[in-house]
Amino acid sequence: MPSVPWKTAITRIEPNRVAVRGYDIADLMGRVSFGEVVYLILRGELPSAEVGRLMDAILVSSVDHGVTPPSVNAARTVAGTGASLSQSVAAGISSINRWHGGAIEDCAIQLRRIVDRCERDGGSLDDAADAELAQMKTRGERMSGFGHRVHTKDPRTARLFELASQSGATGTCVAAALAVERAFGRVGKSLPINVDGAIGAVLADLGFEQGAMNGLFMIARTPGLVAHVVEEQTRQKPMRHIDPSAHTYDGPPSREVSQR
Amino acid sequence: MPSVPWKTAITRIEPNRVAVRGYDIADLMGRVSFGEVVYLILRGELPSAEVGRLMDAILVSSVDHGVTPPSVNAARTVAGTGASLSQSVAAGISSINRWHGGAIEDCAIQLRRIVDRCERDGGSLDDAADAELAQMKTRGERMSGFGHRVHTKDPRTARLFELASQSGATGTCVAAALAVERAFGRVGKSLPINVDGAIGAVLADLGFEQGAMNGLFMIARTPGLVAHVVEEQTRQKPMRHIDPSAHTYDGPPSREVSQR
Amino acid sequence: MPSVPWKTAITRIEPNRVAVRGYDIADLMGRVSFGEVVYLILRGELPSAEVGRLMDAILVSSVDHGVTPPSVNAARTVAGTGASLSQSVAAGISSINRWHGGAIEDCAIQLRRIVDRCERDGGSLDDAADAELAQMKTRGERMSGFGHRVHTKDPRTARLFELASQSGATGTCVAAALAVERAFGRVGKSLPINVDGAIGAVLADLGFEQGAMNGLFMIARTPGLVAHVVEEQTRQKPMRHIDPSAHTYDGPPSREVSQR
Amino acid sequence: MPSVPWKTAITRIEPNRVAVRGYDIADLMGRVSFGEVVYLILRGELPSAEVGRLMDAILVSSVDHGVTPPSVNAARTVAGTGASLSQSVAAGISSINRWHGGAIEDCAIQLRRIVDRCERDGGSLDDAADAELAQMKTRGERMSGFGHRVHTKDPRTARLFELASQSGATGTCVAAALAVERAFGRVGKSLPINVDGAIGAVLADLGFEQGAMNGLFMIARTPGLVAHVVEEQTRQKPMRHIDPSAHTYDGPPSREVSQR
Repeated sequence: MPSVPWKTAITRIEPNRVAVRGYDIADLMGRVSFGEVVYLILRGELPSAEVGRLMDAILVSSVDHGVTPPSVNAARTVAGTGASLSQSVAAGISSINRWHGGAIEDCAIQLRRIVDRCERDGGSLDDAADAELAQMKTRGERMSGFGHRVHTKDPRTARLFELASQSGATGTCVAAALAVERAFGRVGKSLPINVDGAIGAVLADLGFEQGAMNGLFMIARTPGLVAHVVEEQTRQKPMRHIDPSAHTYDGPPSREVSQR
Repeated sequence: MPSVPWKTAITRIEPNRVAVRGYDIADLMGRVSFGEVVYLILRGELPSAEVGRLMDAILVSSVDHGVTPPSVNAARTVAGTGASLSQSVAAGISSINRWHGGAIEDCAIQLRRIVDRCERDGGSLDDAADAELAQMKTRGERMSGFGHRVHTKDPRTARLFELASQSGATGTCVAAALAVERAFGRVGKSLPINVDGAIGAVLADLGFEQGAMNGLFMIARTPGLVAHVVEEQTRQKPMRHIDPSAHTYDGPPSREVSQR
Repeated sequence: MPSVPWKTAITRIEPNRVAVRGYDIADLMGRVSFGEVVYLILRGELPSAEVGRLMDAILVSSVDHGVTPPSVNAARTVAGTGASLSQSVAAGISSINRWHGGAIEDCAIQLRRIVDRCERDGGSLDDAADAELAQMKTRGERMSGFGHRVHTKDPRTARLFELASQSGATGTCVAAALAVERAFGRVGKSLPINVDGAIGAVLADLGFEQGAMNGLFMIARTPGLVAHVVEEQTRQKPMRHIDPSAHTYDGPPSREVSQR
Repeated sequence: MPSVPWKTAITRIEPNRVAVRGYDIADLMGRVSFGEVVYLILRGELPSAEVGRLMDAILVSSVDHGVTPPSVNAARTVAGTGASLSQSVAAGISSINRWHGGAIEDCAIQLRRIVDRCERDGGSLDDAADAELAQMKTRGERMSGFGHRVHTKDPRTARLFELASQSGATGTCVAAALAVERAFGRVGKSLPINVDGAIGAVLADLGFEQGAMNGLFMIARTPGLVAHVVEEQTRQKPMRHIDPSAHTYDGPPSREVSQR
């Protein structure tokens, strides 16, 4: 089994120099945000300052969603057996798959199909949304990224579209997402785009590869998983059965960012 | 097994409101960086703008270190068997333990011991560093976070200390780290503080809990792991034996941040 | 990073020959049970036929314990997100730690301490058990492997001790376990040895290394984890919240082995 | 989120009774082998004694394959970072996917297609194998489970077919596997069925569900993973780069089962 030469385009390590996609990390530090570096390492280029700010907002939007998601449940359950931090967080990451976080990627694919259909057939995005949804219905396929168990009008979605619009980087896929909302409305369904769908629309407009979209969700959610595991290890006894519906929140009361 | 009520202080979920440590995520989006939200979710409070910038720099400093670390090796090896993205990234996270990333926490503990000794015994930090290193030697204990296989003078360290100093938030643990460097010098050893040790010093000065320090490294490294797994899945054949020493870099050439 | 030569004593691979601890696998097939090969690969030698039968019984005793253990909960939770079989089973394995399965190893250590004390101090095992339990009480340490949430008199324990006795391989640690039961009785506590404690006693008498005892539990439980994940994937919808206390059993009714 | 009732058909837990698929575990212990219980928990019924012996042989055949498979590489790499036993074994399990172990399932599917074609079209299994291989070629699909990097004539395969034949339980899929060997021979290729392919053929004849076949490989390989992790933890230094091609075997010399 002789060593086979191979190549990587991510990071070059030389004595006293670590360069990600060509940029010395020491130069990036203090000059660009972590969100911009996430964009850089996944896409190969630094984003504009506006898109960088959008990347930070996308990551912030998904940092945590309380104790009910399966990733938190798995991470806390594993932690309760005496597992290490990394082992517990890894169990959480392992839960980010098609049905948890995957709506980002699925919605992006579906919105692109609507955009492609619109370009191919002419007509409006609304026409294309109607046609695509009809075809999905015959295939028994559901539109991902619309509707939510808890949130009927998610303020994270509105905020994300606002920031996306300010960045000047978004376009047809976000427009297609709004067309889908209207299409649902025309058949009497109130299925607003949720935060996963909104992220999928924005990432599709930014040109992200589908394979990396779920990865962005993993990056965003890791701080939440770390916080939950540390809390489980410090506040709870081992081996408890964790019933998410039995929890109450006892953290800081509601406060505004401007207060800091 | 009736449900036992329990509490969490991290995130409150209400219809159309997701609040982390009291702050509505929709309000945080576009106003604070992801690094500031990482600080918030782990510490319970938003940092000052200066410390927020430092947090981003810490995360940027550790985003990737090429193909040799065991976390990348494990993630790419698992990816090569046909594993999903989340499964491969989880294998990488699972590799962040005492000997990989753990120097951050170990160094923080050791520097705090030097600071405590200095406060207890009086005298200078240099005296305390000499005394602590001597005692560690008799116990057969190594100082963590000093020296590096590849980097003799890591520019990330200098940059981190510069930004820490600008933030006004650092103090005795960073000073203790420099005292340890001098102590090594007095006995003829050139063991400069490395980036893990520098992060440990800064986090200790910021008051981070030890249990969360390794978590910060996991958060920082996840984008690197995602990038490596996506690259393995798209550029390489399954089931290859991965020899890190047989790789070459073929990404963008050296470039400067100001060029963007 | 030149390759450093290293050694392994487990399996030799040559063209058309795979030999575990010196034995050609093709020769082992059909001649020894899987339990005997588990013993071989962990200990380096084949067991006697009687100890081999005991090994199979130990593995059988721990193959599954229904849907309440955290390993099953974690595995099913991860499976419900769309994870693969290996990813879900790995989450279950990751839950086998100090507080889940770990009683085997902990109890073995504690029983050996009683045996050591008895040999050192002279006197009976009952005296040593009393003394050790008293000392543990002052240290705030609990005896592992005694008592059970559900089972007051576990028939698996009696059966295991019976088979261990027949194997001729057990001795002082099993005797110490019975001495501990009597010691609890003398202070009015009914804390019978449970199946984990019984396995720990038997493995200690067989001379197993402590580091491998939890591994034996992982080997035993993997079939159960596979069965639960396959059932979750085939009988349940994705993303359900899994409440173990809400389950009922609808498998085959009670039946006897002799009926087959 | 009220609890939703759900059902499981695997294990019933009652006070002092743990019953797998209806059989009290205490009754199974000492009466049936672990291989038979693996069959029971996956299939729902105890096998005949002959098929039970075959199950043990299948598990024995795959218990380990030295240090080159990615599962061992991942497990040892993770172990070297200071990970726990369960965390390291879980990384190994996570490597058992389509390209590692997956040939069992893939080959079973392909052999069943040949058997189905034979039944549908009439003619011989050789005709069906030729036709199926030709069609696979046009689709760019490879036959799984034939040929091996190291073994040209794997004695485990011959032994497995011998035991399968003795069990009286095998038939058309094993016959189809031999027909594929002959079909390769007719076009001048020497691609003997390998041990994964042979297991796939036997499991297909036994009627195993495809989804559980890779699970059987995980069950078989877990003891090997435990042994490798324990060896890594006890014989090696942390954080070494593991080059499988640089290893030598220093375990017991060749010996015969009858010698014990």
